Amino acid sequence: MRNIKLTVCYDGTDFHGWQRQPGLRTVQQVLEEALHQLTGVRTIASASSRTDAGVHALGQVVHFLTVSRHSPETFVRALNALMPRDLRALDAEEKPQAFHATLDAKSKRYRYVIDNGPVACPFELRYSWHVRPPLDEAAMNDAGRVLLGRHDFHSFETEWPNRTSSVRTILDLAVERSGAFVTLEVEADGFLYNMVRSIAGTLIKVGAGKRPQGWVADVLAAENRVEAGPTAPAQGLFLVKVHYADCPRHHPADHRRRPGEHSADGGGAAPPLS
Amino acid sequence: MRNIKLTVCYDGTDFHGWQRQPGLRTVQQVLEEALHQLTGVRTIASASSRTDAGVHALGQVVHFLTVSRHSPETFVRALNALMPRDLRALDAEEKPQAFHATLDAKSKRYRYVIDNGPVACPFELRYSWHVRPPLDEAAMNDAGRVLLGRHDFHSFETEWPNRTSSVRTILDLAVERSGAFVTLEVEADGFLYNMVRSIAGTLIKVGAGKRPQGWVADVLAAENRVEAGPTAPAQGLFLVKVHYADCPRHHPADHRRRPGEHSADGGGAAPPLS
Repeated sequence: MRNIKLTVCYDGTDFHGWQRQPGLRTVQQVLEEALHQLTGVRTIASASSRTDAGVHALGQVVHFLTVSRHSPETFVRALNALMPRDLRALDAEEKPQAFHATLDAKSKRYRYVIDNGPVACPFELRYSWHVRPPLDEAAMNDAGRVLLGRHDFHSFETEWPNRTSSVRTILDLAVERSGAFVTLEVEADGFLYNMVRSIAGTLIKVGAGKRPQGWVADVLAAENRVEAGPTAPAQGLFLVKVHYADCPRHHPADHRRRPGEHSADGGGAAPPLS
Repeated sequence: MRNIKLTVCYDGTDFHGWQRQPGLRTVQQVLEEALHQLTGVRTIASASSRTDAGVHALGQVVHFLTVSRHSPETFVRALNALMPRDLRALDAEEKPQAFHATLDAKSKRYRYVIDNGPVACPFELRYSWHVRPPLDEAAMNDAGRVLLGRHDFHSFETEWPNRTSSVRTILDLAVERSGAFVTLEVEADGFLYNMVRSIAGTLIKVGAGKRPQGWVADVLAAENRVEAGPTAPAQGLFLVKVHYADCPRHHPADHRRRPGEHSADGGGAAPPLS
């Protein structure tokens, strides 16, 4: 089996999110159907992130195992010929068996786009949230600094079964304005459900002057979702990029590898036989 | 009667162009219906330019005569409340009776957007033409210079009844690249039918290396549509801005104005009565 890492981008408007759901058009279902058509074999694709309905991706990363002998370039071309135009393959690369798009992601970067013009721009309706009151982007940026680093982000999540911990590390957070548009970018080692959208909804309260900057620290400390601002709507959210370590995580199976067998990614010399 | 100059923007995707056509959704029909609802009177709106089906506008200018006493600001707010979200009023201003959005336009600026990435960007499908071969935007820009100035642009028009002359003056023409996107901007004192789209189709031939730069001068000199490149599709075209003289054109009726009656725009002292 070969392991293919595939980077895709999609306009989330007409998808019910990433994950397969019976009877609904999802990114996973459309991609897996194209892989089935191309390879003749039912194929499962795993994504770095299960984006929600309406959320967009500029660089979602997926992996799938296949017996197909197509080159990575052929996968990109053939998938783009088979898939609808709101889902595009951007890049493919063969990876060691151990590579896993979900488990090996070191960090992910999301962008939230706010149309802050007096009138909502018709061209950005599907790709932004229109917030009419003029926002102070510098105040939002400053207020967001308190979220940098390792914290319990329970105040910024929608609860979800099977979540073991709400501790995450935010590596970067910046709010910027370009004309009428205000963007929030957040990079973290992982995200809780609706985390970026509730950070956006919270910082907008500060930007609109409804809450002081220091309020964000209180919300974080409360570890209680009701303290934060509302969850901003899905159509403003983009998964921008997923970062992986140069050398993928060692798969548990690696520990059971016999001496002399090199790991597929060429990492580390095998111990001497003795 | 008051004369209102209104600037609107629209996503042309779901409109059959500006002009009213029986049974079709057009910008003029949607705008005039909102004006009817707002003022209680059937109102005719005249635009600077009758954009085609699928063509977008960032700053289309319209005027209409009305007995309504709403302030310009109220017109903007109320129209935006009544109109669908793909058509927005940006600005309104009361003008002298003589002002005419079509006849007084001094120049118009159009933009044609080409997605020149290896894979068509899903977010720009409705707002660009995907051209896969890498384009040399500097060659396109240089080749386009020959079109600057006053010429007979018969090679760059789709023929249309009642057109009296195909002589126009191009005031500015520039091709630029920003990442995967190549844009052509053209400003002229007026445009023939499909003029920007056939200039785009022609310059793309040069950009893709299929024709030498000097070919554009031959096409212009031929005054024959078959010599030019194809008409680029509508969805890449934007009406960017319409320029008007500071002082509007004197309406013919002005010549019949009695001495002592100032023109509404305050231009020129009236001749002394004698």
